[in-house]
Amino acid sequence: MVKFVSVDNILEIVRDQGIEEFLQGLASYVEEDFKRWELFDKIPRVASHSKVGVIELMPTSDGEHYTFKYVNGHPKNTKEGLQTVTAFGLLADVYTGYPLMLSEMTVLTALRTAATSAVAAKVLARPGSKSMAMIGNGAQSEFQAIAFKELLGITDLRLYDIDPKATEKLMRNLNGRGFNLTACTSGEEAVAGVDIITTVTADKQNATILTDNMVGSGLHINAIGGDCPGKTELHKDVLLRSKIFVEYPPQTRIEGEIQQLDDDYPVNELWQVIRGEAKGRDDDRQITLFDSVGFATEDFSALRYLHDRAVATGLYDTLDMVADPTDPRDLFGLLTKPVGPKLAVENGI
Amino acid sequence: MVKFVSVDNILEIVRDQGIEEFLQGLASYVEEDFKRWELFDKIPRVASHSKVGVIELMPTSDGEHYTFKYVNGHPKNTKEGLQTVTAFGLLADVYTGYPLMLSEMTVLTALRTAATSAVAAKVLARPGSKSMAMIGNGAQSEFQAIAFKELLGITDLRLYDIDPKATEKLMRNLNGRGFNLTACTSGEEAVAGVDIITTVTADKQNATILTDNMVGSGLHINAIGGDCPGKTELHKDVLLRSKIFVEYPPQTRIEGEIQQLDDDYPVNELWQVIRGEAKGRDDDRQITLFDSVGFATEDFSALRYLHDRAVATGLYDTLDMVADPTDPRDLFGLLTKPVGPKLAVENGI
Repeated sequence: MVKFVSVDNILEIVRDQGIEEFLQGLASYVEEDFKRWELFDKIPRVASHSKVGVIELMPTSDGEHYTFKYVNGHPKNTKEGLQTVTAFGLLADVYTGYPLMLSEMTVLTALRTAATSAVAAKVLARPGSKSMAMIGNGAQSEFQAIAFKELLGITDLRLYDIDPKATEKLMRNLNGRGFNLTACTSGEEAVAGVDIITTVTADKQNATILTDNMVGSGLHINAIGGDCPGKTELHKDVLLRSKIFVEYPPQTRIEGEIQQLDDDYPVNELWQVIRGEAKGRDDDRQITLFDSVGFATEDFSALRYLHDRAVATGLYDTLDMVADPTDPRDLFGLLTKPVGPKLAVENGI
Repeated sequence: MVKFVSVDNILEIVRDQGIEEFLQGLASYVEEDFKRWELFDKIPRVASHSKVGVIELMPTSDGEHYTFKYVNGHPKNTKEGLQTVTAFGLLADVYTGYPLMLSEMTVLTALRTAATSAVAAKVLARPGSKSMAMIGNGAQSEFQAIAFKELLGITDLRLYDIDPKATEKLMRNLNGRGFNLTACTSGEEAVAGVDIITTVTADKQNATILTDNMVGSGLHINAIGGDCPGKTELHKDVLLRSKIFVEYPPQTRIEGEIQQLDDDYPVNELWQVIRGEAKGRDDDRQITLFDSVGFATEDFSALRYLHDRAVATGLYDTLDMVADPTDPRDLFGLLTKPVGPKLAVENGI
């Protein structure tokens, strides 16, 4: 039997633990796996493109566990009342090749992206950072805000979205969680005086959310929204002034902000900084940039953490998805045996 | 909600329809998709190797549907009472990127492999073929036998396995299904006078199940067991005397019998023969060889057929695996909404 974490299961697991503590735990797994970087199979996403979107598989393995995520990207979906991005994933045992857990990953991806951003900012932002601008107040924004509060102590948020309704939604959702929230009417207003800028906009285009004159010295930029070819958020001049950190260079050069730069433009690898083998920011005046696109190892960390939480809480179902004849050579015999229990899917709670 | 076809569901779907009719239907979908060959995204498997086995993803798409199969290969599993190969797969809608159906595929893969073998033999074996040798009487063998009876009218089977118990199992399982069965004590004895030879052995090694002196003129060889690097069944001389047909040359050159030949050795593509654009066998004396490794488009056909059968019979469950907030921008809102029904997985029967 394979464990199955449904949408309701994951919501209950996160509610049960509290999102703050869940993000803390998840961040520790993300950090731990970045420190074991060389153990992982690393390949670019396996993408299937169509006129309206893309479907991708993101596999990786540390030699003990194997994971993959299925994720789509369909910008036109929102207009049809559907999610732009949906995802699910699998954790398997490398020794037997058997699946261990299937899970929804739309919610889990938002959590892991936020945890990873905060893990990066912890080693890249100026010590003592307290304030953050958030440009783009959509589906990812609450997760980012809470992760930065939990892991870095960011309490002052300056919010901007081209749609004021998105900002209203974000302020409503963060109400009562200990933030000082300021709604702004432009990106320029949002970035005034902050320590960190998070850009997390959704349009699939080469946008210019941040221009050079908006970015003062000493800032850390957490660039989340530029994550596929043809989708960037920062003006090239911002990149040229920043010390750039990435997850996996071959993927980021295709998908990240640095697709605007030459293929051999020097970038720094986040895992080396987390492991203490490379320097993060060089001084308090430097601009640091985390050019985040989301990498398979982060999904691995998320599935590994979720599996541990599911086992600890019992909040999962089980799926009968692996045929298991008594005699492995007699698969056919299953067809001639008496029918098993009708309810193939059992509630594991 | 995503449809879920469990092991019990697929067994009931096949029993309900009868395996013969299921294989007929599946073969017609396989044929149909081979005829639409140029529409498919075709990439080699995405493999993750370990010391004890391999885990692979096999994605493809025709622009309307997208499928992938997860499949492992762990030869050592049998000794531990586990399956060497387990598989599951997904059918998704390309237009929305949403998953439509998740299914077990261990049983389904055996069915699709048999259907594909028979589809190939229909256009490659000598007309009027009646008898087949089966070397290797393991988990795949019953499926192959029944597919060849249904699609080609093969009734006389000559069986050989290095383990007589496997042959006994096969004879027991085929009893009463209209075959004339002969157990043989060697490969040489099994191939005597037959029209078709099916090799479907399991060892991961370069074995020599068929040598040149065993293969007379006019035979069709259905070579199933050589399906990964370092695993072949036929002596190279057999290949050199045969007209060779393959599914997708770039994959077969790595995984099939033809890994023993030069990279530019001429091979023929099965889809062209099925579509009537290329000749199958040239004359009654020629030896034809289907060097089968299993390609993603066949899994696509199988998942498409199974989806239609599941919908027609109602024999499926449903999974709550796609988060679907009313406002797509308010994913976080799901965490603060009241808890949904506890039983996230509902029985769709």
